Amino acid sequence: MPTRTLRLAAIALSTTLLACAQSSAQVATTPEPAGAQARTAQAGYRPEFGTMWTFDAPPIDYWRRTYAFAPDQRWLDNVRLASVRLPNCSASFVSSRGLVMTNHHCARACIESTSPSDSNYIATGFAAKAVTEEKKCAGLYVDQLQSIENVTSRVRSAITGATPSAQATERDAVIGQIQNECTRQTQLTCQVVTLYHGGIYSLYRYRRFNDLRLVMAPEGDISFFGGDPDNFTYPRYDLDVTLLRVYENDRPFTPPNYLRWSRNGAVENELIFVVGNPGSTGRLNTISQMEFLRDVTYPAQLAGYRRSLEIYAELARRDTSAARRYQNDVFSYENSLKAVTGYRTGLLDSLQMARKLAFEREFRARIAADPQLQARHGATWDAITAAQRELATFNPQLRFHGFGGGSSLLTLASQTVRVVLEGSKPDPQRLTAYQGGGLATVRKAVTTKVAIDTAFERLALTAQLRAAQRQLPAGDPFLRAVLGNSTPETVAASAVRGTRIGDSTFRVSLLDGGPAAIASSSDPMIVLVRTIDPINRTVTARAAALNAVIASNAGQIGQALFAAYGTALPPDATFTLRISDGVVKGYPMNGTIAPYKTTFYGLYERSASFDNKFPFRLPPRWVDRKNRLDLATPYNFVSTNDIIGGNSGSPLINRNAEVVGLAFDSNIEGIANRFIFTTDVARTVSVHSRGITEALRKIYDANSVADELEGR
Amino acid sequence: MPTRTLRLAAIALSTTLLACAQSSAQVATTPEPAGAQARTAQAGYRPEFGTMWTFDAPPIDYWRRTYAFAPDQRWLDNVRLASVRLPNCSASFVSSRGLVMTNHHCARACIESTSPSDSNYIATGFAAKAVTEEKKCAGLYVDQLQSIENVTSRVRSAITGATPSAQATERDAVIGQIQNECTRQTQLTCQVVTLYHGGIYSLYRYRRFNDLRLVMAPEGDISFFGGDPDNFTYPRYDLDVTLLRVYENDRPFTPPNYLRWSRNGAVENELIFVVGNPGSTGRLNTISQMEFLRDVTYPAQLAGYRRSLEIYAELARRDTSAARRYQNDVFSYENSLKAVTGYRTGLLDSLQMARKLAFEREFRARIAADPQLQARHGATWDAITAAQRELATFNPQLRFHGFGGGSSLLTLASQTVRVVLEGSKPDPQRLTAYQGGGLATVRKAVTTKVAIDTAFERLALTAQLRAAQRQLPAGDPFLRAVLGNSTPETVAASAVRGTRIGDSTFRVSLLDGGPAAIASSSDPMIVLVRTIDPINRTVTARAAALNAVIASNAGQIGQALFAAYGTALPPDATFTLRISDGVVKGYPMNGTIAPYKTTFYGLYERSASFDNKFPFRLPPRWVDRKNRLDLATPYNFVSTNDIIGGNSGSPLINRNAEVVGLAFDSNIEGIANRFIFTTDVARTVSVHSRGITEALRKIYDANSVADELEGR
Repeated sequence: MPTRTLRLAAIALSTTLLACAQSSAQVATTPEPAGAQARTAQAGYRPEFGTMWTFDAPPIDYWRRTYAFAPDQRWLDNVRLASVRLPNCSASFVSSRGLVMTNHHCARACIESTSPSDSNYIATGFAAKAVTEEKKCAGLYVDQLQSIENVTSRVRSAITGATPSAQATERDAVIGQIQNECTRQTQLTCQVVTLYHGGIYSLYRYRRFNDLRLVMAPEGDISFFGGDPDNFTYPRYDLDVTLLRVYENDRPFTPPNYLRWSRNGAVENELIFVVGNPGSTGRLNTISQMEFLRDVTYPAQLAGYRRSLEIYAELARRDTSAARRYQNDVFSYENSLKAVTGYRTGLLDSLQMARKLAFEREFRARIAADPQLQARHGATWDAITAAQRELATFNPQLRFHGFGGGSSLLTLASQTVRVVLEGSKPDPQRLTAYQGGGLATVRKAVTTKVAIDTAFERLALTAQLRAAQRQLPAGDPFLRAVLGNSTPETVAASAVRGTRIGDSTFRVSLLDGGPAAIASSSDPMIVLVRTIDPINRTVTARAAALNAVIASNAGQIGQALFAAYGTALPPDATFTLRISDGVVKGYPMNGTIAPYKTTFYGLYERSASFDNKFPFRLPPRWVDRKNRLDLATPYNFVSTNDIIGGNSGSPLINRNAEVVGLAFDSNIEGIANRFIFTTDVARTVSVHSRGITEALRKIYDANSVADELEGR
Repeated sequence: MPTRTLRLAAIALSTTLLACAQSSAQVATTPEPAGAQARTAQAGYRPEFGTMWTFDAPPIDYWRRTYAFAPDQRWLDNVRLASVRLPNCSASFVSSRGLVMTNHHCARACIESTSPSDSNYIATGFAAKAVTEEKKCAGLYVDQLQSIENVTSRVRSAITGATPSAQATERDAVIGQIQNECTRQTQLTCQVVTLYHGGIYSLYRYRRFNDLRLVMAPEGDISFFGGDPDNFTYPRYDLDVTLLRVYENDRPFTPPNYLRWSRNGAVENELIFVVGNPGSTGRLNTISQMEFLRDVTYPAQLAGYRRSLEIYAELARRDTSAARRYQNDVFSYENSLKAVTGYRTGLLDSLQMARKLAFEREFRARIAADPQLQARHGATWDAITAAQRELATFNPQLRFHGFGGGSSLLTLASQTVRVVLEGSKPDPQRLTAYQGGGLATVRKAVTTKVAIDTAFERLALTAQLRAAQRQLPAGDPFLRAVLGNSTPETVAASAVRGTRIGDSTFRVSLLDGGPAAIASSSDPMIVLVRTIDPINRTVTARAAALNAVIASNAGQIGQALFAAYGTALPPDATFTLRISDGVVKGYPMNGTIAPYKTTFYGLYERSASFDNKFPFRLPPRWVDRKNRLDLATPYNFVSTNDIIGGNSGSPLINRNAEVVGLAFDSNIEGIANRFIFTTDVARTVSVHSRGITEALRKIYDANSVADELEGR
């Protein structure tokens, strides 16, 4: 079974990209350049960098100029403290008795785990009849941001090493020290956040709430109405909401700060803010980094998705039941295609890229104008370009000298071999994925039983080897070693036919047997992995070295950028709290106009127009109680706020800090905002606050919860 | 006031393009090539030529192969005789008592003219309470196709002249003769239709019905719901239907052939046919003709639309009331932009163009393989290419050496001058637009009072002169003569300020004064027109000569094509009866799926999501009676049938020749089908038959009409 990618946009993006954001945090050895303050004051807002502002540098002047709105510190503090972060999403306090609002897709694990054994709240939905019926979500917590402190000087002064690796160790050490000290002194959860690739280090202190209980969750079919086809699109009709409650000492928590509920909800053309934790953006990337993604990384990724989709199409041609069996996988790959095509669309937009290039030129000219800055940062762009160029020369090798292509048998075999080989080394010498808790995670995956579809396996392995044959040069060591004089079909067929690696007891026996068992195995998949393993280590090590050069220079650029522009440009997303301004607004679409909102009429339209077929099927309650609803109630809506994966569950608030909606997706045009922010057609998609209360009252008999939200 | 283009897609297209189709009918002197029959049998269906089949050459084998459906002659005769043609649209008999169904936008003149003096049925809608209340549409008629006869040999044998002009005269004469003879003998309306640019001449005999009465028309706001923004789009929610009744001897006519009403209406994936009169397609165009449109004609046209839109934007910036005043003009230009962008999209599709090129190569190879055909037709492609190339060299002159740009004052002045100058010549020596009834038509326009907005006039004239300055070479005679050393702004301002041509009495005085009055006038607009007139005559004559070369060679190609492929390829549209096969089917759109149908839920959704604002405003009756409707009733739907302007009002029928819908538009993706037909995402948009009867019964209290349709 291939890895699920982007099944639920926000989760997949936020977790994946959070990892990227953290791993690319850079070592900084240079002191803050003189004159930064002065330059900061001059530099203005650049729309292409978006509007993900940090709470310690709110752009009050820009807001005042643009919207005639300048919130005071009390407003900002209240909004910050009313916002909380889930492990993979955003959320907010929305009642005086600790109700927390987030997306349904952010709370799936809780909803599933609290379901009784004979039922599933994902299917049926859940609404507690009374506070006593609220169900504890095991292991779930939310973090509330208490304060932010700039610790840049302390981090930088601790870094004195000469090599990147020594610097990284020192940086990690001082960050660990700061975090530990902070936790010891404050009892809070503390995290040092790297902004502007090291332009600033900020200490974020969080209060953690560990007792969350499920209050209300709609059916999966209505929260994800339209399923994968409608994912990333608009007009949209999703009740993607879940209400939790924070408890303290087994009693509902009474938050001093929470967001009141707006009676009107979002209104066309009104200024609104999204407050949440965007996971990762790449807006500080250099042009050459963007070009590499556009011309090398993404095309290869898209080709891989298309290969996978061809395999499913082939299986469906052979066997109609396969079409049903793999429907979710097909949707999932189609969603990945949508997402990556969207990222690439932004980079293919010559107008936007020209704007980006103009910015880079201006920025480099500023650096070049100051001999000191030029000496320190001037060479970084060219260093990145050179490294990217070299990476591009062996990109096919990086893609195909390995275990890709989606064959579960090959994946299991490679994991089995590497758990044994890496497990026998000291931790720091292991491959990254096998360091720390990684080894145990992979070991667990290896020992778990997995169903194998041999027809799929053969096609997947064949397709991967065929693609390798097409893309790698003649005489390539991988092709020589793996194919020799055979065809991809023959190699795949005999490996799939002859292997026992699909059997978990066999895998466990290899783990138990250790390096000797691996070395002596004649199982064809293990033989294949033994052949590929050293070739793969060579190519990944070569890429890692170049990526380290890129990361180190990107860090330099981040520092230079912050030196030149300060907080006038918001930093790239880091899955920490941001506030983004925007306006409720439709947009031109498909030759006509996409309206700023949808209503419940549209939900019934979309279901009826697909004859109520999956994924446009309505839950029974929505069919039975349709006539109770005021169908003209606003349901979903769009706005120009700046969000990305991790923002799922963010509240949308008006000038009075009242809840007007709940963000859950962006439109397909908005995907391109990853690298260059625009608002022509890119939109945040949210559930309207009035749609939430209407559904609570009319569909879920949850008047008490609706009353609580509305402060009645 | 600028000319309204494409205000109502189907009407504008059908009338404009009908003219093109007729004027490009070519002279044919070559006899039918030997062996055509044999080759016809070999040649197969080519999807890029579409499915607009004539009733004398239905593609029974292709239908049988594709749909396992092979209608017999009776089925075809019944369908043909149940279909009728309005002056600018299509229609059909849909009851035993002579009900005729067409689009609302095809019957606007009738609906307006039958309205009482104190009311307007376009605003209020109309439904006759009884047969006696049905209102006669003055001047309206429908034609019913009785028979088709191939008269190719007779036409060709009459053409013996040596020059294209002599041939054209002979051809027109013999066609007139055939038509007159036919009418004398049969009392029918007879028309010789030129198919395949002269590959076949067919005599079409029509029975004309002159007494049509209005039975039912919905409100304009519901028939054109969504207005210009939603025009050419889908999902769609338009009740674009009007019911008329044919009378004979003051009694409802009882048609022997009419279409029964399907109880189910259109069902997903079902085979359905559109029967109607498509106006004009360009699928037989050569690659070089298509490239000329793509690279020269359309970009210039689009630039012109954009210039006009900039003028309205400028006016709106100066004066907010102008934004309201010119809203319709803005919509109209935006619609033209949509349409022409759509045509060009098809030509920019490299995959489709490659397919077209491959066909042209194969076709030319066939011709080249036969020395006789090669001698006759081999040089035609290159002759067209050469003429197109020469046309391209002076396209800016053709665009700007004239009276364009949308200034009403300049238009009126040029018409006044030319009515006088052309009126003083014998008819055959006049410019084409002033021959026959043309002179009187233009004279009437000149003498009619027109409101003039001088702010608009100045901007329009300035913009046109500025564009001329940008696009014409330095030292161009037009620029020298019109601008001299002045700026566009100065010339436009003084011409607009100083002229009296906006006053109709002044124009009449010039007409009365004749050539002497024109020659001696010092009115600045007349002076301007006198300057431009000879320059314009030179450039248009040069273009006309080249277009004659292109037309003559295109005629050769049409004949060669018919010789090589026969009726396996349907001829380009000629506003005569065609039957097109297709399937009811949704399509991928905007990252998700457009459903095969919409329902009344969607109508209320679209209205509610725009807060019931124009053009998404519901008529009062639809608000008041909403609860009577079954909102899940199918309303509009899409199918893969092949339609274009002129098909408006065509019935959609199933295998049983029952009405399942009423065509009224294509989606925006379908606009590209003008030159290359595809069904990936291009769709015909129709009103669903069940939506029609549901509205008749529940909204319009027209149960008796619904009963009549349903044969109750």
